[in-house]
Amino acid sequence: MIETDIELLKGIANQLRIHSIAATTAAGSGHPTSCCSAADVVAALFFGHMRYDAKNPRYHNNDRFVLSKGHAAPLLYAAWAEAGLFPVEDLLKLRQIGSDLEGHPTPRLPFVDVATGSLGQGLSVGAGMALAARLDNLDYRTYVLLGDGEIAEGAVWEAASLAGVRKLNNLIAIVDVNRLGQSEPTAFGHDIGVYRKRFEAFGWRVEDLVDGHDIEEIIEVLGGVGLNDQPLAILAKTYKGAGVSFLQDKEGWHGKALSQDEAARAIAELQPSAKSAAGVAIPAPEQAAAPANGAPASYPATAYKPGDSVATREAFGNALARIAEVDARVVGLDGDTKNSTFSEKFFKKFPDRFMECFIAEQNMVGVATGLGARGKVPFASTFACFLGRAFDQIRVAGISMANLKLAGSHVGVSIGEDGPSQMALEDLAMMRAIAGSTVLYPSDAVSAEKLVEQMALTKGICYLRTSRPKTAVIYNNDEPFPIGGAKLARQNAGDKVTVVAAGVTLHEALKAADLLKSEGIGITVIDAYSVKPLGKDVIKAAAQKTNLTVITVEDHYAEGGLGDAVAGELGADGIKVHKLAVRELPRSGKPEELMAWAGIDAAAIVKKVKAL
Amino acid sequence: MIETDIELLKGIANQLRIHSIAATTAAGSGHPTSCCSAADVVAALFFGHMRYDAKNPRYHNNDRFVLSKGHAAPLLYAAWAEAGLFPVEDLLKLRQIGSDLEGHPTPRLPFVDVATGSLGQGLSVGAGMALAARLDNLDYRTYVLLGDGEIAEGAVWEAASLAGVRKLNNLIAIVDVNRLGQSEPTAFGHDIGVYRKRFEAFGWRVEDLVDGHDIEEIIEVLGGVGLNDQPLAILAKTYKGAGVSFLQDKEGWHGKALSQDEAARAIAELQPSAKSAAGVAIPAPEQAAAPANGAPASYPATAYKPGDSVATREAFGNALARIAEVDARVVGLDGDTKNSTFSEKFFKKFPDRFMECFIAEQNMVGVATGLGARGKVPFASTFACFLGRAFDQIRVAGISMANLKLAGSHVGVSIGEDGPSQMALEDLAMMRAIAGSTVLYPSDAVSAEKLVEQMALTKGICYLRTSRPKTAVIYNNDEPFPIGGAKLARQNAGDKVTVVAAGVTLHEALKAADLLKSEGIGITVIDAYSVKPLGKDVIKAAAQKTNLTVITVEDHYAEGGLGDAVAGELGADGIKVHKLAVRELPRSGKPEELMAWAGIDAAAIVKKVKAL
Repeated sequence: MIETDIELLKGIANQLRIHSIAATTAAGSGHPTSCCSAADVVAALFFGHMRYDAKNPRYHNNDRFVLSKGHAAPLLYAAWAEAGLFPVEDLLKLRQIGSDLEGHPTPRLPFVDVATGSLGQGLSVGAGMALAARLDNLDYRTYVLLGDGEIAEGAVWEAASLAGVRKLNNLIAIVDVNRLGQSEPTAFGHDIGVYRKRFEAFGWRVEDLVDGHDIEEIIEVLGGVGLNDQPLAILAKTYKGAGVSFLQDKEGWHGKALSQDEAARAIAELQPSAKSAAGVAIPAPEQAAAPANGAPASYPATAYKPGDSVATREAFGNALARIAEVDARVVGLDGDTKNSTFSEKFFKKFPDRFMECFIAEQNMVGVATGLGARGKVPFASTFACFLGRAFDQIRVAGISMANLKLAGSHVGVSIGEDGPSQMALEDLAMMRAIAGSTVLYPSDAVSAEKLVEQMALTKGICYLRTSRPKTAVIYNNDEPFPIGGAKLARQNAGDKVTVVAAGVTLHEALKAADLLKSEGIGITVIDAYSVKPLGKDVIKAAAQKTNLTVITVEDHYAEGGLGDAVAGELGADGIKVHKLAVRELPRSGKPEELMAWAGIDAAAIVKKVKAL
Repeated sequence: MIETDIELLKGIANQLRIHSIAATTAAGSGHPTSCCSAADVVAALFFGHMRYDAKNPRYHNNDRFVLSKGHAAPLLYAAWAEAGLFPVEDLLKLRQIGSDLEGHPTPRLPFVDVATGSLGQGLSVGAGMALAARLDNLDYRTYVLLGDGEIAEGAVWEAASLAGVRKLNNLIAIVDVNRLGQSEPTAFGHDIGVYRKRFEAFGWRVEDLVDGHDIEEIIEVLGGVGLNDQPLAILAKTYKGAGVSFLQDKEGWHGKALSQDEAARAIAELQPSAKSAAGVAIPAPEQAAAPANGAPASYPATAYKPGDSVATREAFGNALARIAEVDARVVGLDGDTKNSTFSEKFFKKFPDRFMECFIAEQNMVGVATGLGARGKVPFASTFACFLGRAFDQIRVAGISMANLKLAGSHVGVSIGEDGPSQMALEDLAMMRAIAGSTVLYPSDAVSAEKLVEQMALTKGICYLRTSRPKTAVIYNNDEPFPIGGAKLARQNAGDKVTVVAAGVTLHEALKAADLLKSEGIGITVIDAYSVKPLGKDVIKAAAQKTNLTVITVEDHYAEGGLGDAVAGELGADGIKVHKLAVRELPRSGKPEELMAWAGIDAAAIVKKVKAL
């Protein structure tokens, strides 16, 4: 659009309102009033400001739009339908099982980069995209539309802080301050000044939209995008249900579709001034070379020697620095633990591809998700227990089918003296329960390195569980570690029991095997380095040779970890699974004391084998 | 202390430094430099400002102190030893397995209310305690000591916002701005002005401590506590390692104990000016009646009729309002979903005992933990998937052995059209993996109500999983639901299979039983309302009558939920467990469509039974 046609944009806004109301009424559920408050902003963005190829929503230099207030999905769908991507009639299929126009946006739709709907996550993702634009030297901008209710989420302020520190002036947050939450008014109502102070304190330039329904004012404020080196927050004072007399600024209408009659009345109010966007000339993005985001043919080899003593967390750092040499997609993020997770090794070699996220794990995971959505292969690392801080972000990354790599160090009681607050004992349960996740748990440096390669090459959410103590290298550098596999670490004819272990407990199981061997008792030992998908066939075949008897040993709570994975996968086959796991709240102590206390060391395995 | 003896306090601060250094060196690990930066503030608080009975740290009107920067534990321990609670010699047992002086504080110690060490959680807990003081009309104050690194955590700003809104002027945050994080300097270094703007924007009164090592200045600023109706943030400019020339303000010393030689040199510097606190007159707290926090003898009865159609989430709301009538300990919290979780029913009846926490679940759980630490029985509710936002807070509540009640609604695909971002499909995995947790999953209104009673009467973390759809009442009002039990919902001689279900799938299992019965096939149906501890004996006994064959059916992912619980607990007995669960990422659709799609409805159960 060369000259902004204010009247046309006003009409389009009302057309978007009509679509949102009609679609939610057809669906019988949804959030029409949350769409109405943001309709003018969205009309101005999509048809009077953003640069994008409406026929090719994935074009790499399109401006990005993240609907952080995901419950306004019908408004987003209406905008893309009006932009000509799909027929407006399809909008009436909202929320039906056969349609990708879901209740909240997911990347099943080509114009959605990440799923939203769990509030307060969009700004982190947007920050990740803005960082990706910088890395790729592209000039697209990222617009994030937030609700006022959701900015109570701390994750928003984690994102705001990092964007301020990084001076992401290609990131624009627009807050739809419609005053009303789900169950009551927000804490600050229409007091825009509170939000202004907060964003300013977090390093942002702030513009007020005194009337968030005034297209002229919206266009003018949007014109100031990129004015200085700060990210920009636009605070739009709006009314929930705006444009419909009996909905506007009224409590009790959150998340309610209108009845057929109500919808007809609402649409009758809006129709006279509604205009189709057909024929609007949407500004095209600048043509620019696509970033080279292909996987390399191979990675440089590793050179460990059997018997070397290397913690798997250190091998993770080595691997990241190694694969990044030939894989430009790899970027690193950490939460001020890089000297413990060893992501520092990558940081020192590739400082420009590393993002220190400080102690703010929710935002770190959101930023990583955003980077992944733009073609990067982001490895985010911290102590495994602190990844739990971002569990909801990881869950939503699952819904986003995100390409996200997580590395959690310092797992289990084997960390020792720091005590339970620093021990991850529930991370396997957490990560196994993520949709489509891959969960990996190496026991030595070689397997850790090889699994990092697999993570980089495998699309999706992959989690690497690394340990604090040093462990002996037990594999050769050319040993392959395919996802979904398991290694027979020890097996002899006449073995009595199959012991399934991973990480530090694998070394305990091998010790136990030696001890038992000296007493004439043979056991099969399996390295279950791939916890999800589990190397089920290997375990099953081994169990069938040991009287269907399996012992699992894990430095994790008894719930949801390796033992449950094995029992849950093999339980239907009549295989008897005995779990050794941490069953009580641990305390500070030496690693070996704590592993003995928990009953997951070699002595405990020996005892259990003998008892069986 | 009647007249503040500045010189004495300075000496005590150095004594605390000496203890911190000696203890960490003896332990061979720990964070001495993080203790040194805060030593003056802690000396001033403990020996020149706070009112408490040093011999009785649990006295109900003592001022509370929360060490949010939990890695400075040795400093806290040193203060209590110097206050006379235990011999200073014990400090050298730091981090040993036989000592409660762990690497990070836990409530094994009588002067610790909640575990800390996962950063950014203390202010929420402190806000909860400050709210408890208000509820109990007690004049104690809550002091929270934070590090500058940890205030990057969004949870801190969630807490700050709520404290500002609630005008908690009995809450004091002291930020130890020592400039250095773990792996690099913080984003803002010594720029106290950044933090000032942030706390002010969040509704706090702010005082700068230009020299956070100047006892006189500290005492003066502390004198202004309670001056107005705002919470107070004290920003102390300090140096990490302060007081020791070769440590002060130096990078590379985070989390490192000094060698014996280094410790000797450091102590030699500090010793000349160190003073014992023995004999300091610590101001006594006001004597006040203890809050009546006893459990009632019984709760009023429920009055449902078999066949009534009531969602378990609504029964939760009914129960909360009902038990609160006779149980003054019960308080409610929600994250702006109270009209969906039905905690609104409690809110309407007891508005003073309800805390709207807005959309900030991490803080909600932290506040609830703080309330629980002060004798309340806090029920915090939201959509179950959003409890994942607070997973790390819940994990730490486990370490705190907290009395915390969580209710998560809208679980599984049976919520329908809102789509996957609103569906909890991993909450059982998450909650089972919490140390000492109880996980409950009712299928009808009566069981939901009874389980809420059990939660109130059971100390510890209890989770109630409630469903969105209405389900038929199937139990009589006098049916007991003990934790750890299971109900034989259907059992006849000659049953072929045992089906274990809970929540909505129990009703599907009962439908399946009817369908199969008409074809002459009998199945046992078990209501596994207690997922952890599991009603294992009931399931095992039933399985032994059905050829050791069990089918589990759950509206949850296949990992870490009911199926894994049953397989993991019964796996050692050779019982064959077949899991029906959600195995793919769901989408929007009608509840019944989605349950059919996931293979967890009556038809899927019938099919599976026949296949076996």
